[in-house]
Order: sequence, then structure tokens, then C-alpha cells
Amino acid sequence: MQINNSEMLIPANDPNNKTWLTIPENSDFPIQNIPFGVFLTRDDIVTIGTRIGDYAIDLGALHQLGYFQGIPLTDDIFLQDTLNDFISDGQKTWRAVRNRISEIFDVANVILKNNEEHRKIVMFAMNEVEMQLPVQIGDYTDFYSSKEHATNVGTMFRDPDNALLPNWLHIPVGYHGRSSTIIPSGTPIRRPMGQTLPKGAETPIFGPAKLVDFELEMAFITTDVNALGEPIPVDKAEDYIFGMVLFNDWSARDIQKWEYVPLGPFLAKNFASSISPWIVTLDALEPFRVESPKQDPKPLPYLYQTGKHSFDIQLEVAITPENSSPTTVTKSNFKYMYWTMAQQLAHHTVNGCRVNSGDLMGSGTISGPTPDSYGSMLELSWQGTKPVKLHDGSERKFIEDNDTVSLTGYCQIENLRIGFGEVATKLLPVHPQKK
Amino acid sequence: MQINNSEMLIPANDPNNKTWLTIPENSDFPIQNIPFGVFLTRDDIVTIGTRIGDYAIDLGALHQLGYFQGIPLTDDIFLQDTLNDFISDGQKTWRAVRNRISEIFDVANVILKNNEEHRKIVMFAMNEVEMQLPVQIGDYTDFYSSKEHATNVGTMFRDPDNALLPNWLHIPVGYHGRSSTIIPSGTPIRRPMGQTLPKGAETPIFGPAKLVDFELEMAFITTDVNALGEPIPVDKAEDYIFGMVLFNDWSARDIQKWEYVPLGPFLAKNFASSISPWIVTLDALEPFRVESPKQDPKPLPYLYQTGKHSFDIQLEVAITPENSSPTTVTKSNFKYMYWTMAQQLAHHTVNGCRVNSGDLMGSGTISGPTPDSYGSMLELSWQGTKPVKLHDGSERKFIEDNDTVSLTGYCQIENLRIGFGEVATKLLPVHPQKK
Repeated sequence: MQINNSEMLIPANDPNNKTWLTIPENSDFPIQNIPFGVFLTRDDIVTIGTRIGDYAIDLGALHQLGYFQGIPLTDDIFLQDTLNDFISDGQKTWRAVRNRISEIFDVANVILKNNEEHRKIVMFAMNEVEMQLPVQIGDYTDFYSSKEHATNVGTMFRDPDNALLPNWLHIPVGYHGRSSTIIPSGTPIRRPMGQTLPKGAETPIFGPAKLVDFELEMAFITTDVNALGEPIPVDKAEDYIFGMVLFNDWSARDIQKWEYVPLGPFLAKNFASSISPWIVTLDALEPFRVESPKQDPKPLPYLYQTGKHSFDIQLEVAITPENSSPTTVTKSNFKYMYWTMAQQLAHHTVNGCRVNSGDLMGSGTISGPTPDSYGSMLELSWQGTKPVKLHDGSERKFIEDNDTVSLTGYCQIENLRIGFGEVATKLLPVHPQKK
Repeated sequence: MQINNSEMLIPANDPNNKTWLTIPENSDFPIQNIPFGVFLTRDDIVTIGTRIGDYAIDLGALHQLGYFQGIPLTDDIFLQDTLNDFISDGQKTWRAVRNRISEIFDVANVILKNNEEHRKIVMFAMNEVEMQLPVQIGDYTDFYSSKEHATNVGTMFRDPDNALLPNWLHIPVGYHGRSSTIIPSGTPIRRPMGQTLPKGAETPIFGPAKLVDFELEMAFITTDVNALGEPIPVDKAEDYIFGMVLFNDWSARDIQKWEYVPLGPFLAKNFASSISPWIVTLDALEPFRVESPKQDPKPLPYLYQTGKHSFDIQLEVAITPENSSPTTVTKSNFKYMYWTMAQQLAHHTVNGCRVNSGDLMGSGTISGPTPDSYGSMLELSWQGTKPVKLHDGSERKFIEDNDTVSLTGYCQIENLRIGFGEVATKLLPVHPQKK
């Protein structure tokens, strides 16, 4: 395996690291991952933690027991119900904590290993804890940065010969979404009610959305760095990205079609978006850097960058009908994204827009070049004209009541696998109307 | 003056109330207003307060001194740097507190009046305090609910014969904005940099926005009431609106034009939005209820309402160039809004979108029927073709560097005037580029 210079600066990334914990084969969470999350323990206490294999580690308890001595951290930094303050501490601190965790669980380090009392306090089995939303999301922005997705949508809804709009190759197009309805994996959602315009009708009707869809996305979470009015330069932007999660941007296509001109999607999107609960740091993803697709025309200077600023992250979506087994309906990859996260963040702030700790920015639907790599049912079923077959013999044009949609993702080079776990969300029927 | 039934339930609204404080003539803040805000005192302490005349009243101190005895409030409810928790306490509590403040300062009540020690602790001159953002805004939504504004924009940019888009008369069209850049009156902003497409050009350029504009809006602030998946019915929606502020939705028209298709405005809007610092409760506005314009076609049942659900609020915008005097450039009125706040909130939640305490929802630009009542420079100067004259002899097509834009608003029936104060914001030149 090639190890580049920047990776050498992060001992936690060494592929030769081994831990004294037992890690299941093909785990997304080897000792080289060390993601951050928030969970409710068996004692009903909310704490900040990490995950190694199938263990949830209580960082609040580790800190109280002195395991982070020497790292400048406030006493209660991990005894909080969100990661926002820790993220606000900045990259140097994230890196120091991650490296220290790597040391604590290193196979050669017996301090915690041999302290049963401490182990009982800080370690939980994953099935004993309940994962929470890891950050309080102040603002959520969704980009639209997959050329394949934008081309597919433009082909279906506008003009196949001019599928991309004129601004698309110049701007990482994005829009604001709703923070209050971002939920962690496992929280069920309801089919939304809304206005739609039936084909050929002149006036809209009200009822359950018929075309509920997933969008396969990833999202990154920022720290706070710029004052109002100050841009973040593209070559500094990655330093202000804490990490990434899987992101399902639930969408109601029929509501969207009727409402979105001229101000963009609103109720078609803001009924729910789901994220995976463990934030995988950019540091952990360092070994999986790749170049993004060639950008032609060359972006304006404030967006221009060279080198490896994307990541090779393999993505899958499965649909599981009620009382049935999952069918994988698409396989895609984060590396297909045309615009990088650094370009998205530089663009977002070039007008002086302030970014806070815990803000979340979605990639947009990640579609690959082939029909089996499209990132939404809209594209996979090509507006419902090509139903997708499931294992149980049923077909899907869009998502049906009581289906569970699961997104998974991981990086792999030789024996090193760094993954995101999953974000799984069940779609319940419409809300029973209240009198 | 007519007094309706609901008004009778709120003793603080009685137009005959008098206070032992000296109130300047034509003050926006008589004893019947009692707005809520957050300020920094002369002792550098942040507290929640109200305003009567030109006095800022420290509600945290009043509460500690026992003046709210009998009202179920936590000890620290006013000792916070935002109103979110107080707003979360609900309408019954807001009303009880407002009525109690009315009693404390009533001309017939000598308890605080005769207690010099207490008065020194709880009362400040307005020029001794520094107003802060009154709420932590979780999510900010902007509507587009003035028919005159939507018609003007449609006429300029699309087709004068079909100025309103097909969905406009059926949906209170709205979109998500950026919470992190909402600032209180007095905070200066910078002219944004951004991409624009010069007339006739095929590729965009990067530079300072040339067409920076204000938008005369009002915004309402919500409490939290619905769980994810639960709609708020239109006939209950007003109970969950805490109050209103003046709102200037700063816009860069040239950036907007290039970026906004297909996902809506983004960098053209999110560099700044300014609000007036005192939240005037819906209770205080009760005497000024009016019917909104007739809605034809009749809205779908989930949006349908009868009665007086709008408010007669007179609005003005003034431009003050550097070292010069203000020129009023437009006079409008909130009552022109086609969609009501209750309809906006019912629509926003009909898909189950969760609303939190402190969320802010803007009306959209409030344009009246005549050219001197339009709510933006875009409309007042009709895309720059009709420059607006200022007192100092200069002209404005849009806002120039170092101009201050001030929005003011008040309601008046006979001698009762309830106002919002102002939101004033200075536009500084572009940010000096960093090396």
C-alpha cells in the first residue's frame, strides 16, 4: 500500500496498527477508523463516543479517568449531547484525540486492557447503546454536484440535448434545506401529504405523495472559522471539514414537480433527511484520496484546485420490504462527484456567508455513469418506466409504505477497510389525520 | 375604537392603560406594546428584557426580585442569551408575563415605582444597552407571498401576460434560507463577491456584486409544537406564532440571476438578512387585525380560513448615504400580503415538517399596488431603468457602498400606536482580500 506524506502525520492511520479488542472480519470500524458519535448508554446517559469493532467507547468516561491527559480539552467536552463544541476545538484537537484513542486501544498498550474496572465504565456493546444525532445542525445545505445525476434529471425533465443548465459547469449549485428534520438512522418517517398537479389537470389536488424517493448522498460536517463577510479559500477549506456521514435526502417527486419553480424544492424535501450516526473524520479517509473527474471548463480561480481532493468511497442502497430481505438496488461511488467538498465550501463562503460548527452540507445525489449506479429511484426506474425488481418478486418504481431504505458505504485498499456503517429508515404510511 | 372579544382577554392591550414611566410622544413602545428582546446591559451582562418608551427593562432582574410570583417560570428563564426557552413555554405563559409587566408599570401601581433600589437594578436607558439577536434561529424559511411583488418580478423577468407562475395562487411559495447570517439591526454587512454572467457573455466572471438590494419584509417567530410527521392545522397556527419583527432580506440581483435556476436563490441571499431586535407579540398586534386580500381561487381545505388573519402594519424604507440624511424610498403595508402567516405555517407543516422554538419565517418582499409602495430597489427602479432620487441630489438604482438602509413599521388606531422600532444596516465595501 502506498502511504503518502500527510498520512504519515497521523499515526492512527497506520494500516499496521492492531488493537487488543476483538474486531469482526470486514468491520467498518477497525482501529484505523475511530469515528465520533453521540449515544445513550445502558444507564440512560447521553455521551460522546467512538466505535471500534462492535464496541461503543464512552469518551466522556475515558476523559474523566484521565486517559486524555496532556491534550487541552475542557472537562465536560465529551459530556455533552452534541459534538458541536468538540468540533469547534479544531483540527489539531480532533487529530490529537483520535491518535490518543488509537494508542489506548493499541495491542501493545495494556493500561486500559488490564484495568477491568475502567473497561466496565468506558466500554459498551453496540447493541446496548442507542445512537443519537451526533451534532446540532445549525444550517443544512444541499449541493447538486454529480454531473451524471444532473444530466439524468435534465434529460428527463428538460432537454436531452441541453441536459445541463448553463451555470452547472461553473458553479457547485446548491440550496438551503431544513435542519429540523434531519434524523439519525433508525428513526422512521411518514409518507408526506401535499399538493400535486395530476397529469393534464389545471388545478392541484391534496393527498399523500405518490412518488416518494431516496437520494443516495454523503454529507460533510464543518467547524466554525469565518466571521460574517469573510470567505474561506479553497486551499484551506478541507481543514475546516470535520468528517463525513451517509445521507439519504428523502424526496417526494410529485410534490417537487408542482412546487419547485421558481424558488427550488421545499415541502418535497423537508419532511425528512436521514444520516448515519458515526462521523468518519477526513483524517481517517486520508488513505483513500483520489482525483475528482477532470473539470472542463477550468473553474474560476476561487474554485480552482489540483491534486487529490475526492475520496474513493463505495456506496450501496438496499430496499427491504416489510417482513422481507434486502435487495441492493444500486452501487455507486463518492469519487464520481464533479465538484469537491473543498470547492463546495469555498463557493458557499465566497460571499462572506458564515459557517458554524455542526453545519451539514450534502453532496447531492451521487449517480455513477451506468444505469446500475444511479442514486435515486427516479433515475433507476427512469421516472417509473423501468420498474426495479426485488428479491421477493415485487417491483418498485418508487418507495412503498413500510419499505426500509438502507445506505451503506466503505473505503477499501488491500486489508484496510474504513466504513460508515449504515443509515436505515423505514417509510411509514401517512399520518392518521387528527380531528 | 372597536374592541373585539379576543382583545378583551388581554388586559395589557387596553388602550386606556397608562404607565408611571414617561413615554415620548409617538413612541413605538407604549405600555400596550411590551415586546421581548435580548440585550447587553451597562454591566456587560446579557439578559432578556422588554422595552417601554425609551427604557429597557431587565426581566431577569425583575424575576429574581419576585415580580413574576405566581407565574410558572423556571428561575433562569430570563437569564439566558436567547428567548428560545421562554418561547417554548407557550402562549399562556407569554400572555401571563406580558399582562404582569403591564401591571408592574401601570400608573396605579406604586410597588416598583416607589422602590428606587429595584428601579436601579431593572431599568436602563435604551442608549445604555446593546441589542442582541433575540433568538437562536434554528431554521429560517422565506415565503414569497405578496402578489404585487411576484407579479412585478414575473413581469420583469418572464412574461407580463403570465407574470404569476401556475402554482402561485395555490401555494404559499417558500424556500429555505440561511440562519447563520441573520443579524440584528446595527450590524454592518459587506458587499458580497460572486459569480455573475455579464449581458451577452457566454462565461461568467467573478467580482463584487453590482446589484445589491434590500427586500422590505416582516418575519414571524414560532414556538415548538409538532412532532416530526405531524401537521399544524391552519386554524391553530396563530397560537404557535410568538411575534413579529421587521426583516430586510438583503439580495444581490446579479448573482441571483446567474445561480437560481433550478434550485432557487443561494449566495445571492445568504450573505446577510437583518432583523429588528424587539419581537412584538401577536397579542400586542391583536387590535390591528384586518382581512387579507380575497383569495381566488379558493385555497385547498388545509389552507382555507375566514376572518381577520392579517394585520394593518404601516411600513417604510429609508436610504441614508454616508454623512447624509435619510430619504424615504417606499411606503407599504403588511396587509397587502396575499397569504397569511397561519396559511404559511399550515402549508410548511402539512408534510409533517417539524417546527422548533425560535424558527423564523419571512413574508417575502411586501410590495403594495402602486409604484411608490414597492418593496425593493429592483421594483422601485424597475431594474435600474427609473433611478430613485435622494434628498442629497444623488440617485440610486440599487444600494451603494456605505449606504444605510432602514426599515420601520408601526400600527396605529386613533391614539394607540404599536411599533417595531427599526432595522438599520450599513453596506460596507467588499471584504479586503486576504493573501
